[in-house]
Amino acid sequence: MQDPFDQKKQAILDEISTNSSDNLDASPKGTIDEKCIPIINLINKDPNMVTTSSCSGRVSVFLEGKHQEGQNKIIAKGNEGRWLFVTHNPEDLPKWYDGVDFKYLCDQFPGGESRSILFKFEPLILHVKCRDLNQASKLYTVAMNCGFRESGIGSNYNVAIRISIKLDIPIGYGNDSEELVSFVSKEYLEYATKLSYERFTENFKKMNQLYDAIDKMMSSGDQQKVKDKETKEERRERKIREGLQRQQELKQKQQQQQQQEEEERTE
Amino acid sequence: MQDPFDQKKQAILDEISTNSSDNLDASPKGTIDEKCIPIINLINKDPNMVTTSSCSGRVSVFLEGKHQEGQNKIIAKGNEGRWLFVTHNPEDLPKWYDGVDFKYLCDQFPGGESRSILFKFEPLILHVKCRDLNQASKLYTVAMNCGFRESGIGSNYNVAIRISIKLDIPIGYGNDSEELVSFVSKEYLEYATKLSYERFTENFKKMNQLYDAIDKMMSSGDQQKVKDKETKEERRERKIREGLQRQQELKQKQQQQQQQEEEERTE
Repeated sequence: MQDPFDQKKQAILDEISTNSSDNLDASPKGTIDEKCIPIINLINKDPNMVTTSSCSGRVSVFLEGKHQEGQNKIIAKGNEGRWLFVTHNPEDLPKWYDGVDFKYLCDQFPGGESRSILFKFEPLILHVKCRDLNQASKLYTVAMNCGFRESGIGSNYNVAIRISIKLDIPIGYGNDSEELVSFVSKEYLEYATKLSYERFTENFKKMNQLYDAIDKMMSSGDQQKVKDKETKEERRERKIREGLQRQQELKQKQQQQQQQEEEERTE
Repeated sequence: MQDPFDQKKQAILDEISTNSSDNLDASPKGTIDEKCIPIINLINKDPNMVTTSSCSGRVSVFLEGKHQEGQNKIIAKGNEGRWLFVTHNPEDLPKWYDGVDFKYLCDQFPGGESRSILFKFEPLILHVKCRDLNQASKLYTVAMNCGFRESGIGSNYNVAIRISIKLDIPIGYGNDSEELVSFVSKEYLEYATKLSYERFTENFKKMNQLYDAIDKMMSSGDQQKVKDKETKEERRERKIREGLQRQQELKQKQQQQQQQEEEERTE
């Protein structure tokens, strides 16, 4: 029988491979963010890890749902809450607000129970299920060292990789006549959008850094595995090969130095 | 020799007990947030846990430092970055902006390299070092179940307890003449302050919920320990005691019911 981790991993990979615009997953967008695919593929190459959810970073503008008695007052997603704008792609940012039917009523704030409109930048988040604590700890440490300081290991060796470059800005509200009121100016929205663009840039830089660090972690694991598996004879051969390589490198270096000295003399 | 965890815990407790306005810790404020003290004391009563850092939640207004070549562009804390306002206490919020020398230049946004001013609400965060993975997992699960969905276990069984009710709002910038410019109106600042007040309320509600859940986790641990330690004879005695208690409770209930029936008849 297959190991439970391998079984779970296979099921997740099957689901990922069939995910497309015709076969949506549970996320609001329904498909995997394109910008996450390289890092997802990298991680899933490791037999001890599998990605379970991801978001490459996004800008979203959300109209809260209607408040209900006794409900958490901060964010009510249910009850007709809806996205006015979402993108994972910085190229979609310019003038996004012209696509929303905002009524600009600067500095007219709602009283009492109204449905807030929040403008958000949310950075990369990755969830990775690991085979064991050793693997989870290794991944956690790599992520922390890359600046993903809000990372953590959850239950069942699930590692959440998080960073805290966010924006979370109240920009308006939905009024009783179902209008979308912006109590900040269009210029403010433009400025917040510019900041989000910068955060996207930083976010993708961090994602690349994470990619490289995970790649390095995986290949050093591979080298270790080669060493663990080799027989006595293989080890002898590797040592000879490595010794020859070192000799060759030394010889090359000496030749280069000689050449350099000669060049200096002729100058 | 003392166990390493116990040794570390004792050192932390010694530091906490001498922490005061005369003996500051490494946090910006220098002392433990008053509102954290009950939950810190509760956690530290458990021989398998010790709190290593905490913030009860705060509103802060921060002027970024000067940007340097090659530096992360998002938030530069160093280089003369400074807090214009910080509080852990909702009572300090009203009209905080009157204490800052803001120049209100609505909708005049800076071009190029300027030092941003950010208004932030940050919720409770608690770091708890646990003796082993079992204890860390128990605490992690309790925190997640209370809605602290960004919690995670770090290295050395350090649990970070985090929740994501935040605000992160660009409100202005420091100009070349060292003036503090607010590009949002005073009314906007007032509105953001009102939202922060609501978030504080929700934050403290969550903190109380977490207190109760940790308390329950600890006392169920204690009961288990009593059961683990008792001898056969003690177990027999406990069973008899519990049986007698149940009988007594049943008798009381019957009496109450009888009394109630009598009262109903006389009405």
